[in-house]
Amino acid sequence: MRGGAERVVALSGGVGGAKLALGLHRLVGEGGLAIIANTGDDFVHHGLHISPDVDTLIYTLAGLNNRELGWGREGETWSYMEACAELGLETWFRLGDHDLAVHVLRTLRLKEGATLSEVTAELCARFGLPGLIWPMSDDPVSTMVETDQGVLPFQEYFVRHRCAPVVRAVHYRGAERARPSGRFLTALRDPGPGAVVVCPSNPFLSILPILSLQGVREALGELRAPLVVVSPVVGGEAIKGPTAKMMRELGMDSGVEAIAALYADLADGLVIDAADAALAPVIERSGIPVLVTDTVMHTLQDRIDLAAATLRFAATLERG
Amino acid sequence: MRGGAERVVALSGGVGGAKLALGLHRLVGEGGLAIIANTGDDFVHHGLHISPDVDTLIYTLAGLNNRELGWGREGETWSYMEACAELGLETWFRLGDHDLAVHVLRTLRLKEGATLSEVTAELCARFGLPGLIWPMSDDPVSTMVETDQGVLPFQEYFVRHRCAPVVRAVHYRGAERARPSGRFLTALRDPGPGAVVVCPSNPFLSILPILSLQGVREALGELRAPLVVVSPVVGGEAIKGPTAKMMRELGMDSGVEAIAALYADLADGLVIDAADAALAPVIERSGIPVLVTDTVMHTLQDRIDLAAATLRFAATLERG
Repeated sequence: MRGGAERVVALSGGVGGAKLALGLHRLVGEGGLAIIANTGDDFVHHGLHISPDVDTLIYTLAGLNNRELGWGREGETWSYMEACAELGLETWFRLGDHDLAVHVLRTLRLKEGATLSEVTAELCARFGLPGLIWPMSDDPVSTMVETDQGVLPFQEYFVRHRCAPVVRAVHYRGAERARPSGRFLTALRDPGPGAVVVCPSNPFLSILPILSLQGVREALGELRAPLVVVSPVVGGEAIKGPTAKMMRELGMDSGVEAIAALYADLADGLVIDAADAALAPVIERSGIPVLVTDTVMHTLQDRIDLAAATLRFAATLERG
Repeated sequence: MRGGAERVVALSGGVGGAKLALGLHRLVGEGGLAIIANTGDDFVHHGLHISPDVDTLIYTLAGLNNRELGWGREGETWSYMEACAELGLETWFRLGDHDLAVHVLRTLRLKEGATLSEVTAELCARFGLPGLIWPMSDDPVSTMVETDQGVLPFQEYFVRHRCAPVVRAVHYRGAERARPSGRFLTALRDPGPGAVVVCPSNPFLSILPILSLQGVREALGELRAPLVVVSPVVGGEAIKGPTAKMMRELGMDSGVEAIAALYADLADGLVIDAADAALAPVIERSGIPVLVTDTVMHTLQDRIDLAAATLRFAATLERG
């Protein structure tokens, strides 16, 4: 693996974060970006190792994501799922026929002794994205959601129960023993990136798992580059997914000021949407510089524009 | 599992044997037949446990076999294979999208600790064939083909190299330690079947693996019921597959008299095609009664007719 010479390191979950990751990739170009993907959602299903956020990032950045569904692969077919239904195999997590090949490859390679980083590098190379996306860790971490219906593994909460249960707490099983992947650490270290961008992903389900790994908060604290968070909530609601619902269930406000508070110890700047402009002074008084811009990304140009605005903003920041 | 009260026990490999197995099933009806499938072709591919002959029998008897291809499932789709090709995963063994679900179920259940018999029973029940098809053994046996290009595992020889290498010998790795499945043994024992039918499958690749299991030749020797072999060759050639080619490469004649010699110690009768009628007296002089009939099965009725003729013939035979 190459040393960390990227201009930008991005921390990302799945769909929401991948939008900005795509913008950053188009803006910065090959070799200038390392995307660190949450793997707290990883799970074994149908005997296969599935890394949903890594795969969403790969499909999105390779231009193969399914725009209609909002997840999975474009032009996907579902014959395997039909046959599974006939056999009584679980079908609540939809495995597309093409998508399956990625899970089989990952499972085979892991069984052969490869690390998750090595498999991810092989997949990225196959999809024309060499060295771009890296798992947060090669060690297993499982996001567990404590709800009014008991403790649910992430996918049970997210897919099977469609985020309906009321969340009491979230914890990251295995995180205390999990080390960040080698590539993640080298991307942060000497000479270090020009900026670290926290993509607009769900904090509890996508970003905090990354920050919970051994030594990651310390490594981010020692960065010379600024760390900028792009808010995943706009006007007190998430663009997609349960971020705002979870924040309220966890006893927080669901506005951008709560996002600022969540990342207060690490963020050198926060990017919020124009709809939240009135809250910018409150956040700045708490000590975090704010960029107000359009953060809702509909088009590819929106993604590139937000990436550009975020990096320009980062260039103005000093480490706090 | 129920005791062995079947009228008929059939030993079978894949496509060729399954034709007669289907005829027997239609003729004898549910509960009257136990089909013992060769599992010497089983292998692990893409991390999945594949039992080709069991699956061919299930698909054929469930009426789901692909008539156009001659193997696999009807209405099959190939998205998974396309995606595998893009990822550089092996594609020489074609895994259809629907077929995959069967392999995943089997692999999951085996990993959970089920026996191959238990998984096969689950699959048969799902496909509306309760208790019909049983693996020859729950222990691993691997048919290895010694060729002029080295020792090839069965699927490498059969699918990858399309039976082109010259065969020097065939052996069944693990057979000396493998016990017949419980259901196979009970099907042969008290009160015992009315007849044992060896389906027109390749002897070396489908039937001898079954006979090579611990105690099977002894159990067949102690049968009170007659054992009838339906010849897999007609006019010195196989209807399908490499039977005749292999016989010649192994230094035998490829005619029905060589089939009679192969099974001489076990067969109480041999069914041969009308095209080979002239050879009947030669075989009968060697001590094996012969039925001459039409053995080439084109239609479902052909399959049922051959099954009926074979069982009528069996009823006339005494144990040798």
